[in-house]
Amino acid sequence: MKRHTQHCPIAGMLNIVGDRWTWLVIREAFYGASRFHEFERNTGIAKNLLADRLALLVDEGVFEKRDIGDRGTRYAYELTDKGKAMQPVLIAMLQWSNDHIYGAGRELVQVVERKTNKPLQKFQPTTKSGKRLAWSDLAITPGPAASKAVRKRLSQIPTEAGGPQQRKHAS
Amino acid sequence: MKRHTQHCPIAGMLNIVGDRWTWLVIREAFYGASRFHEFERNTGIAKNLLADRLALLVDEGVFEKRDIGDRGTRYAYELTDKGKAMQPVLIAMLQWSNDHIYGAGRELVQVVERKTNKPLQKFQPTTKSGKRLAWSDLAITPGPAASKAVRKRLSQIPTEAGGPQQRKHAS
Repeated sequence: MKRHTQHCPIAGMLNIVGDRWTWLVIREAFYGASRFHEFERNTGIAKNLLADRLALLVDEGVFEKRDIGDRGTRYAYELTDKGKAMQPVLIAMLQWSNDHIYGAGRELVQVVERKTNKPLQKFQPTTKSGKRLAWSDLAITPGPAASKAVRKRLSQIPTEAGGPQQRKHAS
Repeated sequence: MKRHTQHCPIAGMLNIVGDRWTWLVIREAFYGASRFHEFERNTGIAKNLLADRLALLVDEGVFEKRDIGDRGTRYAYELTDKGKAMQPVLIAMLQWSNDHIYGAGRELVQVVERKTNKPLQKFQPTTKSGKRLAWSDLAITPGPAASKAVRKRLSQIPTEAGGPQQRKHAS
């Protein structure tokens, strides 16, 4: 699979999870699957693709591959901390689908608080001190390691789209 | 592109955004791009792929295609409300990449509160009444429209992975 070379955190993550199968494999790991045949059965992915994706996920430190065979070799694939940290992305996807594909009252699957069985609040942006923000309060800015190209790109984003500057509307 | 047929909100969303380019196109729309050549230039995607992806995103109601030509035909692609609602997924991806690909102090791009220029809190699960939960407090449960197959699948998830039942460890 060709890799994105853009300096962008979205592109960086897509190099790891950017195909139509990988999120299903990661979903299964959150559901407790750890064996090759479990991932295969529960996603319907072809064996060769699954082998390829698992190798990439191990290489990238998302899964750890452990030999769990007592006699002979037998592997388990388990989420590392780096992999477990993908949970917000999966939940954000689930919330979007529930709202915009299925709709209220027609959800197939929900994320709930275990103790009360009640659905979560949708993700909301908040400051580090806990103040809730509107989506329109956010801006995209260069980070400490932004290259010149990234700075230039971000400077062209119109304010209303989350950027620092007003863009003239090119026609 | 073949579509996932699994009854699963993640699979449903991957049918729309599940390839290595589509999120970059959506990122560009959030950055203010609306014209074919802007998406092409800013992502590096091939023209034929871009045409295909834009058509799919319009079909799925993520983008609206508007004729903005004064003389002749000229199109703009703009995020609908359904498309704008994908922002939490993009931000969750950005936060994961910043933590797990780049690391603190080495971020290329950040999402901040516009007014203070300070980075957001990472997404946290909360109840509808605003109580913060730990990731381990969450469970995956069947929604109101869960099929028998979905119910069966979810009943097999071990408790510690977010499911309702303890699974015996198959060896």
